[in-house]
Amino acid sequence: ADLTLEQALKAIAAAKAEARRQGTLMNIAVVDAGGTLKAFERMDGAFLGSVDISIRKAKTARMFNMSTKALGDISQPGQSLYGIEVTNGGLVLFGGGELLHDADGVIIGAIGVSGSSVENDMAVAQAGAAGL
Amino acid sequence: ADLTLEQALKAIAAAKAEARRQGTLMNIAVVDAGGTLKAFERMDGAFLGSVDISIRKAKTARMFNMSTKALGDISQPGQSLYGIEVTNGGLVLFGGGELLHDADGVIIGAIGVSGSSVENDMAVAQAGAAGL
Amino acid sequence: ADLTLEQALKAIAAAKAEARRQGTLMNIAVVDAGGTLKAFERMDGAFLGSVDISIRKAKTARMFNMSTKALGDISQPGQSLYGIEVTNGGLVLFGGGELLHDADGVIIGAIGVSGSSVENDMAVAQAGAAGL
Amino acid sequence: ADLTLEQALKAIAAAKAEARRQGTLMNIAVVDAGGTLKAFERMDGAFLGSVDISIRKAKTARMFNMSTKALGDISQPGQSLYGIEVTNGGLVLFGGGELLHDADGVIIGAIGVSGSSVENDMAVAQAGAAGL
Repeated sequence: ADLTLEQALKAIAAAKAEARRQGTLMNIAVVDAGGTLKAFERMDGAFLGSVDISIRKAKTARMFNMSTKALGDISQPGQSLYGIEVTNGGLVLFGGGELLHDADGVIIGAIGVSGSSVENDMAVAQAGAAGL
Repeated sequence: ADLTLEQALKAIAAAKAEARRQGTLMNIAVVDAGGTLKAFERMDGAFLGSVDISIRKAKTARMFNMSTKALGDISQPGQSLYGIEVTNGGLVLFGGGELLHDADGVIIGAIGVSGSSVENDMAVAQAGAAGL
Repeated sequence: ADLTLEQALKAIAAAKAEARRQGTLMNIAVVDAGGTLKAFERMDGAFLGSVDISIRKAKTARMFNMSTKALGDISQPGQSLYGIEVTNGGLVLFGGGELLHDADGVIIGAIGVSGSSVENDMAVAQAGAAGL
Repeated sequence: ADLTLEQALKAIAAAKAEARRQGTLMNIAVVDAGGTLKAFERMDGAFLGSVDISIRKAKTARMFNMSTKALGDISQPGQSLYGIEVTNGGLVLFGGGELLHDADGVIIGAIGVSGSSVENDMAVAQAGAAGL
């Protein structure tokens, strides 16, 4: 079954809780199994430019069924997928995009977070994915 | 003051309540005073193509400080703004985009709804704006 | 000779004076003989969506060496250039784009105005062109 | 409060004064708090390709609330934000985009300058920001 809106909002709530714990201001996007935007929230004061990045992180993760960090690692200069970021209208190659799984481990979507350091973005995205 | 995330989610909740009353499945987007996406939700089963339309409706309304219905009325063949839809990366000329005002009547953003007939989209958007 | 920045700012000043006389809030753009943006000003409170429209009006006028009103007249449904608005990345087919000429009548650029009714936009653009 | 047109033109005047002191020909763009273009001037003889770059520099700075130089430093190959330039329709990763603050230190917009070496662009943008 595909991701429900209820699940998407649960993931966003878990992500926001981690952002508040960090003291960061995040843009948080969730896409469904088809890679289409399901829910999005921008915390007050979060970067304007992170709307697009958070959505792209979620889409990028789902497009290749791996975190954006994992995709980024194999897309650096000299690596096998170097240059992939210009495909699909623009991908994101740094951390903050994580897959969402159902109870059986099936991929049902992805979450993208942007607004702080890549390390903080990743921790918030992982908290969102875990909170599903 | 700009729209807060709390206000955006309140508008979306009011819009979803009206959609449930109608028995329709909607995409609902809210942009802030600068026209940037603040929050978005897609009800389960709602049109995939309405993600983009709902976001554009909200942006279109804020860009010209009028509902998309009002803009559409003056952009028909033979009307004064015919052809305006190709500007700004693509505008929406039919109803479902409404302005959001604060208690003093200042425009603080806009809501865009897409997923059913234009009449239903408009009613849901207006319910969202009223629920702010 | 091409339009100078001094001339562009003189045209914008004349346009703003007419907008103030009207009591309207305008976006005003000037392009040079090559159709490239030379100067732009958005009056406080003017439509956000008119940034793009004012620039496109100026470019559209210069691209075909006629006012956007004149181009629009021959691009309506049933007219000879119907559909031209989707070319060149998006043209504007309603009034508010006017050519700029030097003392010898040579076209040296164009001015585009957007922010009120088409009639007001045209009057402000013509005042700008006359003020050059 | 958002940036006024008067403030935007004051920043551009200060930037032009520094460009004249350098003997360079610059494109200078100012965006407001929402990241939307507020004013723009291209000095006579300045690069045509710098219209787009100066506007993108201003938008990029506001999108992430840091100078384009600071963003560029963390987006190089091997750095944390590598590849970010393909997001948001295209970002600029080299210097010349600087934030604009009001008297209370609140970010109210940004200035982007392009037309010479990056060092010169940065000095002109910083002069513009200081002249606000």
